[in-house]
Amino acid sequence: MATTVYVLNGPNLNLLGTREPEVYGRATLKDVEALCHEAGARHGLAIDFRQSNHEGVLVDWIQEARAKNMAGLVINPAAYTHTSVAILDAVLATGLPTVEVHISNVHAREPFRRHSYLSPAAKAVICGFGIDGYRLAIDGLAAMLTSSKD
Amino acid sequence: MATTVYVLNGPNLNLLGTREPEVYGRATLKDVEALCHEAGARHGLAIDFRQSNHEGVLVDWIQEARAKNMAGLVINPAAYTHTSVAILDAVLATGLPTVEVHISNVHAREPFRRHSYLSPAAKAVICGFGIDGYRLAIDGLAAMLTSSKD
Amino acid sequence: MATTVYVLNGPNLNLLGTREPEVYGRATLKDVEALCHEAGARHGLAIDFRQSNHEGVLVDWIQEARAKNMAGLVINPAAYTHTSVAILDAVLATGLPTVEVHISNVHAREPFRRHSYLSPAAKAVICGFGIDGYRLAIDGLAAMLTSSKD
Amino acid sequence: MATTVYVLNGPNLNLLGTREPEVYGRATLKDVEALCHEAGARHGLAIDFRQSNHEGVLVDWIQEARAKNMAGLVINPAAYTHTSVAILDAVLATGLPTVEVHISNVHAREPFRRHSYLSPAAKAVICGFGIDGYRLAIDGLAAMLTSSKD
Amino acid sequence: MATTVYVLNGPNLNLLGTREPEVYGRATLKDVEALCHEAGARHGLAIDFRQSNHEGVLVDWIQEARAKNMAGLVINPAAYTHTSVAILDAVLATGLPTVEVHISNVHAREPFRRHSYLSPAAKAVICGFGIDGYRLAIDGLAAMLTSSKD
Amino acid sequence: MATTVYVLNGPNLNLLGTREPEVYGRATLKDVEALCHEAGARHGLAIDFRQSNHEGVLVDWIQEARAKNMAGLVINPAAYTHTSVAILDAVLATGLPTVEVHISNVHAREPFRRHSYLSPAAKAVICGFGIDGYRLAIDGLAAMLTSSKD
Amino acid sequence: MATTVYVLNGPNLNLLGTREPEVYGRATLKDVEALCHEAGARHGLAIDFRQSNHEGVLVDWIQEARAKNMAGLVINPAAYTHTSVAILDAVLATGLPTVEVHISNVHAREPFRRHSYLSPAAKAVICGFGIDGYRLAIDGLAAMLTSSKD
Amino acid sequence: MATTVYVLNGPNLNLLGTREPEVYGRATLKDVEALCHEAGARHGLAIDFRQSNHEGVLVDWIQEARAKNMAGLVINPAAYTHTSVAILDAVLATGLPTVEVHISNVHAREPFRRHSYLSPAAKAVICGFGIDGYRLAIDGLAAMLTSSKD
Amino acid sequence: MATTVYVLNGPNLNLLGTREPEVYGRATLKDVEALCHEAGARHGLAIDFRQSNHEGVLVDWIQEARAKNMAGLVINPAAYTHTSVAILDAVLATGLPTVEVHISNVHAREPFRRHSYLSPAAKAVICGFGIDGYRLAIDGLAAMLTSSKD
Amino acid sequence: MATTVYVLNGPNLNLLGTREPEVYGRATLKDVEALCHEAGARHGLAIDFRQSNHEGVLVDWIQEARAKNMAGLVINPAAYTHTSVAILDAVLATGLPTVEVHISNVHAREPFRRHSYLSPAAKAVICGFGIDGYRLAIDGLAAMLTSSKD
Amino acid sequence: MATTVYVLNGPNLNLLGTREPEVYGRATLKDVEALCHEAGARHGLAIDFRQSNHEGVLVDWIQEARAKNMAGLVINPAAYTHTSVAILDAVLATGLPTVEVHISNVHAREPFRRHSYLSPAAKAVICGFGIDGYRLAIDGLAAMLTSSKD
Amino acid sequence: MATTVYVLNGPNLNLLGTREPEVYGRATLKDVEALCHEAGARHGLAIDFRQSNHEGVLVDWIQEARAKNMAGLVINPAAYTHTSVAILDAVLATGLPTVEVHISNVHAREPFRRHSYLSPAAKAVICGFGIDGYRLAIDGLAAMLTSSKD
Repeated sequence: MATTVYVLNGPNLNLLGTREPEVYGRATLKDVEALCHEAGARHGLAIDFRQSNHEGVLVDWIQEARAKNMAGLVINPAAYTHTSVAILDAVLATGLPTVEVHISNVHAREPFRRHSYLSPAAKAVICGFGIDGYRLAIDGLAAMLTSSKD
Repeated sequence: MATTVYVLNGPNLNLLGTREPEVYGRATLKDVEALCHEAGARHGLAIDFRQSNHEGVLVDWIQEARAKNMAGLVINPAAYTHTSVAILDAVLATGLPTVEVHISNVHAREPFRRHSYLSPAAKAVICGFGIDGYRLAIDGLAAMLTSSKD
Repeated sequence: MATTVYVLNGPNLNLLGTREPEVYGRATLKDVEALCHEAGARHGLAIDFRQSNHEGVLVDWIQEARAKNMAGLVINPAAYTHTSVAILDAVLATGLPTVEVHISNVHAREPFRRHSYLSPAAKAVICGFGIDGYRLAIDGLAAMLTSSKD
Repeated sequence: MATTVYVLNGPNLNLLGTREPEVYGRATLKDVEALCHEAGARHGLAIDFRQSNHEGVLVDWIQEARAKNMAGLVINPAAYTHTSVAILDAVLATGLPTVEVHISNVHAREPFRRHSYLSPAAKAVICGFGIDGYRLAIDGLAAMLTSSKD
Repeated sequence: MATTVYVLNGPNLNLLGTREPEVYGRATLKDVEALCHEAGARHGLAIDFRQSNHEGVLVDWIQEARAKNMAGLVINPAAYTHTSVAILDAVLATGLPTVEVHISNVHAREPFRRHSYLSPAAKAVICGFGIDGYRLAIDGLAAMLTSSKD
Repeated sequence: MATTVYVLNGPNLNLLGTREPEVYGRATLKDVEALCHEAGARHGLAIDFRQSNHEGVLVDWIQEARAKNMAGLVINPAAYTHTSVAILDAVLATGLPTVEVHISNVHAREPFRRHSYLSPAAKAVICGFGIDGYRLAIDGLAAMLTSSKD
Repeated sequence: MATTVYVLNGPNLNLLGTREPEVYGRATLKDVEALCHEAGARHGLAIDFRQSNHEGVLVDWIQEARAKNMAGLVINPAAYTHTSVAILDAVLATGLPTVEVHISNVHAREPFRRHSYLSPAAKAVICGFGIDGYRLAIDGLAAMLTSSKD
Repeated sequence: MATTVYVLNGPNLNLLGTREPEVYGRATLKDVEALCHEAGARHGLAIDFRQSNHEGVLVDWIQEARAKNMAGLVINPAAYTHTSVAILDAVLATGLPTVEVHISNVHAREPFRRHSYLSPAAKAVICGFGIDGYRLAIDGLAAMLTSSKD
Repeated sequence: MATTVYVLNGPNLNLLGTREPEVYGRATLKDVEALCHEAGARHGLAIDFRQSNHEGVLVDWIQEARAKNMAGLVINPAAYTHTSVAILDAVLATGLPTVEVHISNVHAREPFRRHSYLSPAAKAVICGFGIDGYRLAIDGLAAMLTSSKD
Repeated sequence: MATTVYVLNGPNLNLLGTREPEVYGRATLKDVEALCHEAGARHGLAIDFRQSNHEGVLVDWIQEARAKNMAGLVINPAAYTHTSVAILDAVLATGLPTVEVHISNVHAREPFRRHSYLSPAAKAVICGFGIDGYRLAIDGLAAMLTSSKD
Repeated sequence: MATTVYVLNGPNLNLLGTREPEVYGRATLKDVEALCHEAGARHGLAIDFRQSNHEGVLVDWIQEARAKNMAGLVINPAAYTHTSVAILDAVLATGLPTVEVHISNVHAREPFRRHSYLSPAAKAVICGFGIDGYRLAIDGLAAMLTSSKD
Repeated sequence: MATTVYVLNGPNLNLLGTREPEVYGRATLKDVEALCHEAGARHGLAIDFRQSNHEGVLVDWIQEARAKNMAGLVINPAAYTHTSVAILDAVLATGLPTVEVHISNVHAREPFRRHSYLSPAAKAVICGFGIDGYRLAIDGLAAMLTSSKD
């Protein structure tokens, strides 16, 4: 049975912890990765954690997740949330359960950050918990996977 | 120190489990209440769980939460999400950390359900996890309360 | 078999006959109630006729109509036509056949009066016949009930 | 005294009963005509029932109704509802009491079907009762004619 | 002759003085009430001062003002300014001279606060004078009443 | 050399003089025709004057004007002003100088009457002079024809 | 009896004949003035012809036309057509019959040139006849004045 | 088995070859008809080729295509593309496979030419190939018919 | 200490009392000036009262108010309310407390009159009290000045 | 003479045949490639067939097509249709004849799929024929190349 | 040969250095003038530097620049950027090379400050360099003049 | 101290000089690079000059500029100006002074080219000077760096 989850991170998230800390906090992407492995372990899930600034690379990875039969996806598309139909189509094509995560509360920022192409295709969306949102996403995804196995 | 959280539910949520189960699932509001007490207990938080069909009553309760010095709010405003500025103003007035929850993925439904007056004032927003979203909301709120205590 | 119909009236309709008679005519809400009982009697239907200025009370009544197994609903939501998603959700939740009535021709007034949240969930909509529209609504609802009984 | 009513039907209504029956039902336009004669007879009104796919022909008939001193008009403009200012102007020019009828609930379909050029000039509007709406329209129109005779 | 004025306050105004004092100042609703009695007294007008978080209660009170033959209305609808057609209709139905008051300058805040359903039906509108706006509203209303008596 | 002008009139203009005289005046279309012949005679132009309620017939006539080598067109498209791209395309195809006329001031009526598909293709537009606008249109067209002959 | 007409010209029209001749032709504003005197003479009307680049000056002149009891106004507001509410208000205040003229066909240019603040307040509007439009405007205005004298 | 295809042409296409040749080319509608017969013959399909300037006639023909059990439709609605809901409804009613064709690239012209009422109901759309687009439409339609026969 | 207030009036207000008296009343601008001196005197404030039809002159005066160290501004920008960014910038530059006044209730007129460029920069806004609004504006401004002196 | 055509495919098209087969059919991108070679061969055209998930790579290839003097382009930009101005600019820069292809009828899907940045720069557009649209695109492009050679 | 450049400054720029220094800096308009003379001198250009709060005066000056055969224009229209079609038309009429300058980055302020009527007619636009933008504008204009002389 | 500036160029700029020379001129990107080195040298700044068609690569380079402690950025994002939030976020993250450059006057082209995601985050924006804009950008940036050093 599929027991690995891809956690994919979009453009500029590699700068986490150093960029606008009053918005995104001081934890780095390394910290997020550790937190994800920990959360996954509690549910018997391996985590494959990646980041890219390239829209096309993110699309490639989402397709790969399906080819390799992953259990699900956690995606923080960052800026591509608002501009990428290609990522939306890739997620629609995989058919894998997908959780969309944002570190800050996107609803409390510029208006264009309130629109997400991805959300209608996601199973669930989380925002505003800081990096703790990744843990909650993996917890929630694990609950989905368990209940759909029954 | 404040250790109680109000979990407030808006109009028609009293019908949960019987109304459009293909959208909202078969669990009842009683089940949600149990799940909230359980989640609260894990963090040493008492839960005060309520539902009303009246916008004004919800505003009264939010004000009461502040008067009684509650630790925070979890609100599923249901239909009032999209039409109530009064609830927004009440939350702004309390200054309490507030998490907005929706059972279904509101981004995948009618367009008018994508707009929330409350979201900009909320600390965080969760949707699409079914009733499990209430648990994640309490977990996330507990983490916020702990970190702000430090 | 269910033989009672709720006829529900929204805010300010208690002033009927005295308020802007050039728009709404001189008949009072009492007259409308008599007219409804008469129309119901012709079809063997009892009428439970109510009015409230409170959105939440109207939502409570719609839920009650379902709990008590009524045959159907005739609703004139008045001002809440244009602002209430809660009434829409309540009607969606009841599953009862519902007819929306307006006394004046709402299409010939201010633009914001042309949009109704309720109409998509209603089985039928009538406007512009003055209070005679209530009679037509009950006639039409009776025809629906008969044909669905066959 | 005028005792005839024109019932005019717009484009594609000649296909009634065979076209998208899940939207429009299985009754044919012949059935509608019979139903209208029956309804008219109850009020001592003769019915002149017509259909055309041509906007100009409908305008001609509305003008003719006035030239021949008809008692009133019932119009289902079908697709021309949303695109014809010429029909609107013809109705404005006749000065005859006019009821607009739609078989389906136009509020629950594509957005462009919610806008009607004709509605502001009509005395009343009915939609969503299926073909029974024609009967209700004639009933309502008869009531108008009677009350204006007093 | 009518010598009483209703001063009605909408949702969350009971928190005045404690809620966001940098926007609304430190005076409480009690202070506002005292100020209104004082202003009324100078013009021989009694003041009936009320607050509610419930839209329906405010509609009831506006209707009552008319039933009891009050001299006029001063209303601060707060959040319901932007969402309530029911209050608009109630004021239209009363026919009483009405002044709309806002404590802060609503034009200098979020865009949705610039639109008021009530304003077109009000005789006059005042905003931005802090709680002193109530005094000016009563002064202005007294002048209107005097001049219309002549 | 071409010395005939088509004066084409759209739907409902055959009712002129009897329809809404406060908007369109009491002169009939016969009067307009006489006035046009008179105006044409002063410039040595014959007038071919026509009216139809059918969009397609108007398109046919515009094409015919070109086939028969007319000197120019004066068109009052009435309601088709606002809805017909077909008439626009026909005028573009003829290449004949065209003047658009409206009897009333269309800018002072409903907003949808301010938009004309035809105007960008017309050489000139006149409105608001009552039927005298036809005379001015023929005068202006004659001046255009003379100056382009030089 | 009033026998003088003000012909007012807005900003940059003093450059007529030298500015973009492919749009506005080669005639100068002097030529337009001569043409206006000629047209006026035929109807026994004196012409007071003026131009200014200043919005306030145009407003002053419109007020003066009324103070001095002129017979009517012909205005080419040029760029102020699209931006001046002050000129609209001045024309509304005069109560004098006003004809709006544009030399080019404004419907065939940039979209912002199709919107005129003045048109709803004007009795008539002419565009696209080149400077000959001034003559037609005075002819049409004379006809209006004559018919209103009867 | 059905082996005839209707090829229907909208208003002004009878002028093809003489009207704006820099946009539409020099071929006439006769040439298009020959080209269609040739293309049909290659697939064993007879072609019934027609043109009308009348919206109602086009609706009649689409209904006739269904009554006579045609194999499919190729339609170039010309100007009615952008204004006719009646043609859309007729195509929806026929249930026949329909290909929409435009000679020029409508996306590179005025904005209002980019919107087509018909496209959502068509199986396929072709534009910009000049009259060769008709040949491709028949080729494509033949392929559809063949594959659905399997 | 600054004890003079500029009361500035925009275009066409010099016609007050003679222009559309059913909208603006019969008092003249002279009457308004008297009323302002009276109101100022009660608070120990001198009034410098001016009117201009020129946007630039109003900007000059606002700058002058600052250069001469005035206590505050009362402005009725009339038509420039809706079109002048220059007046907005001038008020922002002065830093003086400013009250915006309108004689009629601008919310009950054409839609474009509901938007004010000035309001966000004003301390307070008053409309609908007739010319009495000027008195209230000076009263309110005096209260502001007193409280800020404390 | 140039005898090669680039056929470029955008993101997720490599999944063709496995992704949402009810929308896109069961043929794979390999099948499409074969079909293109076959279609090209009939016209003496070689085909260079490529796919990428990367917007930048597609831009590189379009530039390369020009550098290497290709005969033309067939592009299915998939998701980049709706979001890429870079591809539009690349096509504008090449000056090569370009045909845009979509497998499904984009007009019958979500509204954001009806807008294409590329269409105005393309010579022609085809959608809704399934993968057969590629064959038609190559046929049509070949015809264009032949006729422009004459 | 023309060697003088007009540098024109719109409303409120005379307050530079004293008004909102956090937005506009502390330099005065005198400093800007000095800086312009210096920059001009480096290129052998004389500078005629002016400021006005009056839209009409700015239009007069632009026309004068052309009458006197100036080499070019540098304009900071300030608030008139967003509201003046008259300045746009004046610049179009002069045919002189024109550079638009803004001191602050207008794109980072209120939305209405992002729209400029003038920009499409300007040869170039500069914003955000503080007053140094004037120097760059003169440098750039000098380069344009030199290259067009070749 | 940082003395190097990245000059980054977006998609299709590698074609400069060959692509649409009437819009972009005949200079190549090599020429631009030379011009930048020259301009940099005058201020003691080294220039690192790059171009890519890939959005992700541009984001990588902006991040690198920060990692390597560059003095500032000059960016011509070309087509990504209008579609890339990722570049905006990267610039926000660097905190480096950034100047946005466009060769043509983007305000005078298609409407979608007037919107820039980047502009609000840029310190300054230049367009319309042709390639000379790069020189001005470096000059302006140098001035900023000098003044912030003081």
